[in-house]
Amino acid sequence: MEFMTRTTINLPQATAPALRDGLMTDEFAAGAAMIRSGKLERIWRLPGQRANMAVWNVTDATELHDLLSSLPLFPYMRIEVFALSTHPLEHSGD
Amino acid sequence: MEFMTRTTINLPQATAPALRDGLMTDEFAAGAAMIRSGKLERIWRLPGQRANMAVWNVTDATELHDLLSSLPLFPYMRIEVFALSTHPLEHSGD
Amino acid sequence: MEFMTRTTINLPQATAPALRDGLMTDEFAAGAAMIRSGKLERIWRLPGQRANMAVWNVTDATELHDLLSSLPLFPYMRIEVFALSTHPLEHSGD
Amino acid sequence: MEFMTRTTINLPQATAPALRDGLMTDEFAAGAAMIRSGKLERIWRLPGQRANMAVWNVTDATELHDLLSSLPLFPYMRIEVFALSTHPLEHSGD
Amino acid sequence: MEFMTRTTINLPQATAPALRDGLMTDEFAAGAAMIRSGKLERIWRLPGQRANMAVWNVTDATELHDLLSSLPLFPYMRIEVFALSTHPLEHSGD
Amino acid sequence: MEFMTRTTINLPQATAPALRDGLMTDEFAAGAAMIRSGKLERIWRLPGQRANMAVWNVTDATELHDLLSSLPLFPYMRIEVFALSTHPLEHSGD
Amino acid sequence: MEFMTRTTINLPQATAPALRDGLMTDEFAAGAAMIRSGKLERIWRLPGQRANMAVWNVTDATELHDLLSSLPLFPYMRIEVFALSTHPLEHSGD
Amino acid sequence: MEFMTRTTINLPQATAPALRDGLMTDEFAAGAAMIRSGKLERIWRLPGQRANMAVWNVTDATELHDLLSSLPLFPYMRIEVFALSTHPLEHSGD
Amino acid sequence: MEFMTRTTINLPQATAPALRDGLMTDEFAAGAAMIRSGKLERIWRLPGQRANMAVWNVTDATELHDLLSSLPLFPYMRIEVFALSTHPLEHSGD
Amino acid sequence: MEFMTRTTINLPQATAPALRDGLMTDEFAAGAAMIRSGKLERIWRLPGQRANMAVWNVTDATELHDLLSSLPLFPYMRIEVFALSTHPLEHSGD
Repeated sequence: MEFMTRTTINLPQATAPALRDGLMTDEFAAGAAMIRSGKLERIWRLPGQRANMAVWNVTDATELHDLLSSLPLFPYMRIEVFALSTHPLEHSGD
Repeated sequence: MEFMTRTTINLPQATAPALRDGLMTDEFAAGAAMIRSGKLERIWRLPGQRANMAVWNVTDATELHDLLSSLPLFPYMRIEVFALSTHPLEHSGD
Repeated sequence: MEFMTRTTINLPQATAPALRDGLMTDEFAAGAAMIRSGKLERIWRLPGQRANMAVWNVTDATELHDLLSSLPLFPYMRIEVFALSTHPLEHSGD
Repeated sequence: MEFMTRTTINLPQATAPALRDGLMTDEFAAGAAMIRSGKLERIWRLPGQRANMAVWNVTDATELHDLLSSLPLFPYMRIEVFALSTHPLEHSGD
Repeated sequence: MEFMTRTTINLPQATAPALRDGLMTDEFAAGAAMIRSGKLERIWRLPGQRANMAVWNVTDATELHDLLSSLPLFPYMRIEVFALSTHPLEHSGD
Repeated sequence: MEFMTRTTINLPQATAPALRDGLMTDEFAAGAAMIRSGKLERIWRLPGQRANMAVWNVTDATELHDLLSSLPLFPYMRIEVFALSTHPLEHSGD
Repeated sequence: MEFMTRTTINLPQATAPALRDGLMTDEFAAGAAMIRSGKLERIWRLPGQRANMAVWNVTDATELHDLLSSLPLFPYMRIEVFALSTHPLEHSGD
Repeated sequence: MEFMTRTTINLPQATAPALRDGLMTDEFAAGAAMIRSGKLERIWRLPGQRANMAVWNVTDATELHDLLSSLPLFPYMRIEVFALSTHPLEHSGD
Repeated sequence: MEFMTRTTINLPQATAPALRDGLMTDEFAAGAAMIRSGKLERIWRLPGQRANMAVWNVTDATELHDLLSSLPLFPYMRIEVFALSTHPLEHSGD
Repeated sequence: MEFMTRTTINLPQATAPALRDGLMTDEFAAGAAMIRSGKLERIWRLPGQRANMAVWNVTDATELHDLLSSLPLFPYMRIEVFALSTHPLEHSGD
């Protein structure tokens, strides 16, 4: 089942640069692993924001929560989740 | 450039069934053509709503408007548009 | 997987009484069948409103949409959907 | 009488780990006791959020407030309360 | 148990004057009966609006819904309901 | 003239316990005095929140502001004020 | 006591021109009389809107409601009311 | 003085085509005249919407209102107005 | 040209009393000077809030911004600005 | 392609004056360079706010994000982005 997420990241300005850099590196590695596993299908930046929209392919909302809450920046994220149904147009060429 | 849209369709209940059926058939055909052309990359239903989320690949916002306003159901749509920037994670496996 | 829905029903005041009564009877029968099948787990009225909250147990958002859009009053409903994850407290007595 | 709650937890990031762990353990124990007593009927996580939805079976809003305000994490919670009326569908199989 | 309601009335401008007058007379009589029974404790107009705030003393949300949905103008009302808990200040003079 | 208020209290978690206890005791005493004087007619807790709704009987908005801003917890309060008009139903039994 | 109002007027487009003109003439006359009586102190148009902001000097919210609900266009108005307290700056030159 | 406007146009679907075409032609001519006079400096479509954003150069809000309310489609417009101040960056190259 | 402002002041609770008193004294003096100059026509407190509504008579939005941003408390203010057009009723007695 | 942005700046009050002055100087220089390059076409202050509206001429949303995120004050900005389509009126004089 697919989900859309809209994620905003609020890492405090006062975060020490070394901690920030470490979090960012770990976050990127975790995201890349989720892309390789096929769980994270697409991800885009929202321009001018520290925010992204992403499409996930997971078993259910519990697996989605486990993935999201494993991210290093999860404590700093505000996430909206949209459950997605298949649209008949996507099979219009079958 | 990619855009995300969130579209809600409000076809009045009082629409005559023949008009409604004709609009639905034409809308489906128009959507299928946009998928074949590659302009409409993905589309999902939002469950419980007469609404969808979609990802578009177009030159700019003017081409996006021309595509959306050519849809047979456009007069009945409320559309939110999100401009999308590329996210470095999408090239993490390059 | 479970979902929560919040549904508001806006049947126009001008609906002919016979049509209204027929819709209400059919809606009740459809809801009762969904309870018997176990798809609709719980349902409550929101006091003072033509609205309810309900808990569903379905395969995914596509099955949820198919159930909701099969309801006789679906054309008159505005529905919010919340995907639900399991909470560890629910297994605290295991 | 039943109530629905939607609770968001905002424990500050700067909370000392030992304090945080103690609060979490105490919160889980308090929640489990409320489930065993039948006051807390159901609870779900909202995916991607530090938030839950729950169904309570209590005498009235005063007992609900007493239960909620006794929770160890109550000072860090934002809670929305929805009073629930019985729905005739729940007795449709009687 | 007490509840607060905030009710807005949207009787269509096109309502025939005789129907409107009949509804208004019936609504006033129904409200007066609820005051005499003690179910409706207080009621105020919100200035400049076709709206009121009211305090109810009922068994639970199901009785409140039964009272509200019995009002002649109920089909034209939008009602917000706030469940109320007792406040220790109200017994400060005991 | 009567007013309704909806007050939310945000005393910072970091407030020293002695200061907090003193503020709470002073606030309760000030509220009790306003009840005895008849200025504060009714007050309820909103369940699950550090919030209340209250009904005031004062000369005008200036007296209401003077009362509210004299409360020990006023610096920590967010207050919504609703001016109230008399409702003809309240005199329906005269 | 003074009040601020923000009023939006939604006269349906389908209103017959003669009815519209009559309403407008009557509304203007009623407003002019309220200015002469000193009840209506100031009034401004909000540019680009069929809306105004106004300052009233009345006894209380009940008189304000009586004035507003006597206006010919009242059935077509949505009105927000702000109760006003005196500000010490207004007497700073005394 | 400059103003920004955000205008949404809601011409009812049921408008007769001849009336609609006449309104559109007149609206375009009126807009073109305002561009030629220098009152309307810039105008953009918001993609996917029957809406535009525009920049105006007028004496004050009264002249802006006179221009906007003279537009043939004004009765069908919802308009937000933002007053603009000069920004020091615009003279940074002087 | 006239403007309406709605200003909310959020001076942090932790502000040292001497700094707070100084700011308040300077703010009052600045406001009184603006009243004497005729730039600030009217000002009211919103009851129960650290907020005011005010009417300004200035050349344009740039002069308004210069006045507002010169206030000692400006760094602690959140200000909404409404541009005002003249209303024909204000000249109805001419 | 053109974009509109609405930017609000929240530099904490506690920022050391030297840091603040340095940031402001650098921000002004960066903005001036973007004007000279033609990327930043117009910019206005919103009166009474630490906010601006601006019009950008860039290749796509990715270039816009790169420009915005290069600004010295970017970590303190909240930015809304509106993609813009060309409006036929802008070519009405061609």
